[in-house]
Amino acid sequence: MPAESAPALPRRLVAEALGTGLLVAVVVGSGIMAARLSPQDVGLQLLENSVATALGLAVLIAWLGPVSGAHLNPAVSLASWWWGRPGGPRPGTGLSGPEVLPYIGAQVGGGLAGSVLASLMFELAPVQVSGTERVGAGTLLGEVVATFGLVALVGALVAGRREHLAAPLVGAYIGAAYWWTSSTSFANPAVTVGRSITDTFAGIAPASVPPFVLAQLAGTVLALGALAVLHPVTGEDALVTPAPALGDETT
Amino acid sequence: MPAESAPALPRRLVAEALGTGLLVAVVVGSGIMAARLSPQDVGLQLLENSVATALGLAVLIAWLGPVSGAHLNPAVSLASWWWGRPGGPRPGTGLSGPEVLPYIGAQVGGGLAGSVLASLMFELAPVQVSGTERVGAGTLLGEVVATFGLVALVGALVAGRREHLAAPLVGAYIGAAYWWTSSTSFANPAVTVGRSITDTFAGIAPASVPPFVLAQLAGTVLALGALAVLHPVTGEDALVTPAPALGDETT
Amino acid sequence: MPAESAPALPRRLVAEALGTGLLVAVVVGSGIMAARLSPQDVGLQLLENSVATALGLAVLIAWLGPVSGAHLNPAVSLASWWWGRPGGPRPGTGLSGPEVLPYIGAQVGGGLAGSVLASLMFELAPVQVSGTERVGAGTLLGEVVATFGLVALVGALVAGRREHLAAPLVGAYIGAAYWWTSSTSFANPAVTVGRSITDTFAGIAPASVPPFVLAQLAGTVLALGALAVLHPVTGEDALVTPAPALGDETT
Amino acid sequence: MPAESAPALPRRLVAEALGTGLLVAVVVGSGIMAARLSPQDVGLQLLENSVATALGLAVLIAWLGPVSGAHLNPAVSLASWWWGRPGGPRPGTGLSGPEVLPYIGAQVGGGLAGSVLASLMFELAPVQVSGTERVGAGTLLGEVVATFGLVALVGALVAGRREHLAAPLVGAYIGAAYWWTSSTSFANPAVTVGRSITDTFAGIAPASVPPFVLAQLAGTVLALGALAVLHPVTGEDALVTPAPALGDETT
Repeated sequence: MPAESAPALPRRLVAEALGTGLLVAVVVGSGIMAARLSPQDVGLQLLENSVATALGLAVLIAWLGPVSGAHLNPAVSLASWWWGRPGGPRPGTGLSGPEVLPYIGAQVGGGLAGSVLASLMFELAPVQVSGTERVGAGTLLGEVVATFGLVALVGALVAGRREHLAAPLVGAYIGAAYWWTSSTSFANPAVTVGRSITDTFAGIAPASVPPFVLAQLAGTVLALGALAVLHPVTGEDALVTPAPALGDETT
Repeated sequence: MPAESAPALPRRLVAEALGTGLLVAVVVGSGIMAARLSPQDVGLQLLENSVATALGLAVLIAWLGPVSGAHLNPAVSLASWWWGRPGGPRPGTGLSGPEVLPYIGAQVGGGLAGSVLASLMFELAPVQVSGTERVGAGTLLGEVVATFGLVALVGALVAGRREHLAAPLVGAYIGAAYWWTSSTSFANPAVTVGRSITDTFAGIAPASVPPFVLAQLAGTVLALGALAVLHPVTGEDALVTPAPALGDETT
Repeated sequence: MPAESAPALPRRLVAEALGTGLLVAVVVGSGIMAARLSPQDVGLQLLENSVATALGLAVLIAWLGPVSGAHLNPAVSLASWWWGRPGGPRPGTGLSGPEVLPYIGAQVGGGLAGSVLASLMFELAPVQVSGTERVGAGTLLGEVVATFGLVALVGALVAGRREHLAAPLVGAYIGAAYWWTSSTSFANPAVTVGRSITDTFAGIAPASVPPFVLAQLAGTVLALGALAVLHPVTGEDALVTPAPALGDETT
Repeated sequence: MPAESAPALPRRLVAEALGTGLLVAVVVGSGIMAARLSPQDVGLQLLENSVATALGLAVLIAWLGPVSGAHLNPAVSLASWWWGRPGGPRPGTGLSGPEVLPYIGAQVGGGLAGSVLASLMFELAPVQVSGTERVGAGTLLGEVVATFGLVALVGALVAGRREHLAAPLVGAYIGAAYWWTSSTSFANPAVTVGRSITDTFAGIAPASVPPFVLAQLAGTVLALGALAVLHPVTGEDALVTPAPALGDETT
């Protein structure tokens, strides 16, 4: 951990906790509202839930990105550390080793608090046990795919120095992945834990949390592999090799 | 109030009144249309109402921002003044003391006029008394949270000199907060007052207005505290300290 | 008409006809699809119609803007000419007098062709007479307001040299105005004419066309007045006067 | 094929296969989810399907554009080659002749794999035969129009060196075209093939694939004609001729 960034760590942890907490409040709160107001069509509920999440997540990343990077997700923090570790593909960038656990702790703590906040706003018991079992072969495959795409997307933006696009693109990614993955795309261990203490639309039974988190880690590993293929590090110009093709953003 | 900006104040007040008026017309008008056309599902009504509001609010901020700053919200104007007051965190920026009340007056007057306009467009009595009581412990907590997030977001954009992102981000924030806060996120005293004179989908009973406004002010105070933590003023470089993290917009 | 731009006029007229035609095809076609697939809820039909229109209109403006300005609307072309006429607020900008009628002709012709195209795609008679009467006091007021906002928005973007924002903002404006104006915001004489020859969701009875167009022209005049107030021309710096306020885009 | 870009071709093919695969997974997967969760309203299913597709497609183009150009579509690859072939309108740009077939192969292979992935996530047989016949005179006209618009849009962005706008604009274009074209806008031969091996919401019967692909090729040819009219090559300045008109992006 370089000395010059040490003073900022507490501030960054506040941002990670606040952001992950509000993200879980968005997911859980909009799920409660949707289930109450559209009781007859679960698809409409998911549409309402996914639109709110896509917009809210984009706002949180844009808001807090300059403070902490707005990971809001242990999978992203782990990938950031792996990517930038000494001897890694981009040494000297990303989280340092001693920063990883505090980041993850802030995210998980914030996620739990955000779930409590949503329950209080909607006048439910602050901590509940979700009864929604979500584990199945297809669902876990969906969660692997969802997390793979999320981490590979974020990594590609970092590799191309296009982090300013993370807010709209990550928001849009999750908004879509609610629909096209069979797990509705949790893709975030801290959010998964936060969603385990609410027995509402967005809840997940505690017994489903460990397999979901394992699937998310598997997706993260796959994403790191994809990044090595798509964005190889073979000298400085590896990042800027243009493709001579219609629609190329770099020419 | 610096002499060079004094001539512009009337023009800015026109922009604030016009913008807040159209904002209330968007909220109330789309609520009337939604309730008429989708009578069977309140969630679908809120989806229609929230999509229209998110798009309309983003347009109004982009349109009028260069004229008046497009506060369109007394909570934002108060935060602007507090932030930039002599001895405040950013002295010399924001609204001056004598400008605050005219801004708020223009916003409230515009908000009332916008509600009347919506009623006239839909051939309803121009002024009605809303019968929709909205006060409850959870609802007021929701309103505190909603306003906290809105003002903290705007403040972070100003602190980072990213005001050009206010239009899409504030629109997206409110579009999401319609869903994840239990109050459906009024988050704006002038809009709250304007919505009290229509007895339609977006209405709020006059008796609920004072507690809602108090909750909004509480959220504003909390947001100023969050800004002090997340964006401390300790010299010029406090604004540009990069976080060495994946997804950081500033590196 | 300056000599150097004369060669381009036919090409610009192709763009205006193509763009207005596709705009009407979007409006009419998505209305037919929505009415067929969601027969039980008119609000859901309008949601589907408005989302498709907002996205499609934004694409058309971004696509064709560099060729013709992508007015796609006689109200915008008239405002462009008035604004930039000799002795007008911005002399030398905008359409010249001899270009106005060709632009409007291309737009109306394109709009009619677009309606025919939509009917053919959905295997309906290419030209029908709409039976949907839309005239009422509230509806006409809605149409005045809708066109006022559209033209004032576009004018503000031009005055501030922010034309690159026209695509997302005009798309979002119309997407919202489908909901908050009682007329569902035609706001475009060429589109109104094109919609008169389809007896489907988006149709308008021929007898309603003249009052709608008059309301649109009234809204255009009001918008020119608002522009004179909000963006006065009192020297070069009138365009860049910053407002010292939170959320101001120009500071 | 210039020597200096040869090393990158395999990497680009990975990107095209991955991107087209995920695109088909988005289309098919969100269709399955929508049909399961909203069984009572086909329009609502299409709304859910189209929102997910618009967001997902925009993300894929932004993500993979810098690697391969993110064609994800044989019609776009063919247009790219035609446009930049020796003696073409923009010689030296776009795909070279020997690159076209590998690109198309990667896209078709990826599309098939993406369909299998969607089926596995939702625990369906990995390869099915779709029973959804889609051919009709109106539907084929719709497919011609849909592909015309897509390729003409992409070509205009390339001609104006605005490729960075491809992600949001192509996503928005397809999201709208699901609604306003009678074919729901496949507009992509590789996606059409991929959708033929799933017997779900997004499926297309194998017998309908050849006429759909022919319609897509016809639309591509029309788009090349439109590009020649709207963006003529008559010297360097042909690309930058400004239109003196309200809303012009180039002045």
